Amino acid sequence: MNDSSNWRDLVVSFDEAGLEQLRRGAGAAVNSLATTPAGPRSRLSPHEIHELIATLDVCPDEGVALDAVLEELGTKVWAHGVVPSDPACVAHLHPPSLLPAVVSELAIAAANQSMDSWDQSPAATEVELHLLGWLAKLIGLPAGASGVMTSGGTASNVLAMTLARSAAAQRLGVDVLKSGLPPEAARWRVLCSDQAHFSLQRAAQQLGLGRDAVVTVATTAAGQMDLAALDTTLEGLTTEGLEVIALVATAGTTDLGVIDPMVEIAARAQRHDAWFHVDAAVAGAFLLSERLRPLLAGLELADSVTVDFHKLWWQPFNASALIVADVARFDLLRVRSDYLDRGDELDGVVNLVGRSLDTSRRFDALKVVTSLRTLGRRNLAAMLEQLVALTNYAAARVEESPHLALVAAPATVSCVFDAPGFDADALRDVQQRLLLRGEMVLGRTKIKGRAALKFTFMNPLTTTDDVDQLIALITDELAASGASRRS
Amino acid sequence: MNDSSNWRDLVVSFDEAGLEQLRRGAGAAVNSLATTPAGPRSRLSPHEIHELIATLDVCPDEGVALDAVLEELGTKVWAHGVVPSDPACVAHLHPPSLLPAVVSELAIAAANQSMDSWDQSPAATEVELHLLGWLAKLIGLPAGASGVMTSGGTASNVLAMTLARSAAAQRLGVDVLKSGLPPEAARWRVLCSDQAHFSLQRAAQQLGLGRDAVVTVATTAAGQMDLAALDTTLEGLTTEGLEVIALVATAGTTDLGVIDPMVEIAARAQRHDAWFHVDAAVAGAFLLSERLRPLLAGLELADSVTVDFHKLWWQPFNASALIVADVARFDLLRVRSDYLDRGDELDGVVNLVGRSLDTSRRFDALKVVTSLRTLGRRNLAAMLEQLVALTNYAAARVEESPHLALVAAPATVSCVFDAPGFDADALRDVQQRLLLRGEMVLGRTKIKGRAALKFTFMNPLTTTDDVDQLIALITDELAASGASRRS
Repeated sequence: MNDSSNWRDLVVSFDEAGLEQLRRGAGAAVNSLATTPAGPRSRLSPHEIHELIATLDVCPDEGVALDAVLEELGTKVWAHGVVPSDPACVAHLHPPSLLPAVVSELAIAAANQSMDSWDQSPAATEVELHLLGWLAKLIGLPAGASGVMTSGGTASNVLAMTLARSAAAQRLGVDVLKSGLPPEAARWRVLCSDQAHFSLQRAAQQLGLGRDAVVTVATTAAGQMDLAALDTTLEGLTTEGLEVIALVATAGTTDLGVIDPMVEIAARAQRHDAWFHVDAAVAGAFLLSERLRPLLAGLELADSVTVDFHKLWWQPFNASALIVADVARFDLLRVRSDYLDRGDELDGVVNLVGRSLDTSRRFDALKVVTSLRTLGRRNLAAMLEQLVALTNYAAARVEESPHLALVAAPATVSCVFDAPGFDADALRDVQQRLLLRGEMVLGRTKIKGRAALKFTFMNPLTTTDDVDQLIALITDELAASGASRRS
Repeated sequence: MNDSSNWRDLVVSFDEAGLEQLRRGAGAAVNSLATTPAGPRSRLSPHEIHELIATLDVCPDEGVALDAVLEELGTKVWAHGVVPSDPACVAHLHPPSLLPAVVSELAIAAANQSMDSWDQSPAATEVELHLLGWLAKLIGLPAGASGVMTSGGTASNVLAMTLARSAAAQRLGVDVLKSGLPPEAARWRVLCSDQAHFSLQRAAQQLGLGRDAVVTVATTAAGQMDLAALDTTLEGLTTEGLEVIALVATAGTTDLGVIDPMVEIAARAQRHDAWFHVDAAVAGAFLLSERLRPLLAGLELADSVTVDFHKLWWQPFNASALIVADVARFDLLRVRSDYLDRGDELDGVVNLVGRSLDTSRRFDALKVVTSLRTLGRRNLAAMLEQLVALTNYAAARVEESPHLALVAAPATVSCVFDAPGFDADALRDVQQRLLLRGEMVLGRTKIKGRAALKFTFMNPLTTTDDVDQLIALITDELAASGASRRS
């Protein structure tokens, strides 16, 4: 395997010799991870990392032995990454990954199925459909519900908005995919809360509507979409002659983790004949827990739902799904081609390219299925409940602290707070110093203009002791900078 | 590890015990691949595969031991996939994967960096930039060139067209991302050849222009964009008062593999002040070979270039790149957010979300770098040259055959042919019977309305004997169906 002069041994094969090469190579790849730092990241600065990586010769004329290549990548790359499984890595919805998923990635890459057409992924196509059918049922959607895997929550939301745009055009008798946006599109609006993810603005940008077409509805102090504000907004838009083509609820906002009141929003969507999309990228996993599931009441009323497996299902990137209540909605998207999805295939063939904005697409469904079957529902529920309890613990400690103040009560797995007497610059400095010294990868954001710090708890192995230490680190850092920065 | 009741052992960690679990799990994943069929796929029908997969319990209440889960996925899934490394798997641009990339996937998934922000991928961000800087230089672009990894050629082309749309709007003083398409957009056109990939139509659909905004230019008998036809088209559009916002050349069309005359097309793009994009998803890899590189003359004149590493660079899905000649062009895309890419970061920090249509994004660049360093340029060039030679051999055999006829001379790695006297239905039946019986995964398409069969050679281990056998299989199958189907 290490004789790079013979490329013939480096093309994956499945006979016993080929599998043995894979086993050995996998062992070397695992060894390369031994350089992963003990903390959340190394102490190297951005410039130092830049200089280090610049020394890599990307493509030498003659190859280098695989073991040596992997070892070098260990010392240069993995040693200077972030470590999502470290308890002090709490900035983002960025999970440590599950072992069954990680080892499945090896098989996914070796088998290299492509999900665009059945003749590139016969069983894989059925696995993806089977997984998404299961998820649709778990959500409580009607029998015709199904979906497609996408590269992330942004892609899932963009796909949902693409379908909503086509539905609005169809009501006018316009084929927007063929002819482009009709003049009426200038009056189309998408509604979501002011805490919704920016991917809705990006979807509107992408679709030619512009991000100004996204109207954000004010939220309550807790961060939920305010129903009175929603009604006022809807009334105002109607008065102006504007059309709400999509009403979007968020189940788990990016910062506060808040879940919008979906039953009530669904009723408004129906009244206005608007597509009801739920971005459940964050909290969709709560479906797995008897205790947490009631928080998702109304999810079953959605026309489409975004679920990110690479968040609270602990899948390595990327693994997201868009589920639609009526699979026929994907016909709004379908384009036949001569070499793919021709429409004259063997009986029973499904070409998933007809549901997707991608063409070639990896078999991410396999790792999700491997993980779900290995962990089982009860384990996954316990892990979720553990994280919610840990987040509540953190919030209680923040509340007790004389130096910190909660911005809102936690709703899922994030805890947002600030430090009375410290301004935005001071909070930024705290976050950046902890990051630069490799002590904590801490979140930082703004809630309604108020600068704040953020814990996002994604690792169910994190303990209350860990939380105490994180809070102590932050208060120490604030104290150290207090004199010069106090506003 | 197999005690599913303890989920604590199933969260990836990097201490010696954690790495040992990964090694064992990786071994089990490799073992599961032993069921890969000996031919291009199993003989199961679409319905039989559907029934088989339907028996999988996606998420049982209690978990199942990992080894058992992987073993079952081996017999149900890998046993009924397609095998891109089999010489009879010749339908699509669907490569067998390189071992260094496959084992890297394990490390990518375990480390689980996310490319959207530096604090989720410090060294990984630099690796992606370093790889794409290398590629930009290889293309021959100016010093300010850089790029971003995407999920595929479709996403790369959509991103390029998004930038072209923004550039056109900017000339009118319109911020299209903010305000949506201006009325002038109804006159915007994208030009490409009638052999270009359908993702350009999909980009126009997505962007609100509609696929009718894509004007296809006639091609020569060989399948290249016809320059006289291009001039006529450009003249006609100008006369009609339409504006060409992007002129797209293809370096390696999906069916014929043809490379458009880029130097000449670039000159027209410049004259019309149009964005010059090259879809080099297929033939971009030719940059690595001294012998093949001259075919790409003019690529260095592009405003943007799509390169698919998951085609002729033998990477597992997904790995594509969009390279832009001037990195400042990405500013046309950038949207700040409060929690990500805030603009007030540590000196030297780059948040790649500013260049991407995705948010969370996996570290695909790592597998590409591992592969390039392990194989080296000379090996990769030899593999490409081997495939081009094999394709020419196949074309010669088709030409000699009394039963088959070339549709066009091969240009890269695909060979398109039909069978005089057999109509489209007969060709379909041949392709579908070979697929159903698990004997060959053969390509089928239409070139300018003419039904055809297609070999796409992606495996450099395929031999001329293999090609002889493929041709014999097809001619036998035609003969068997001859009496009833001859038109």
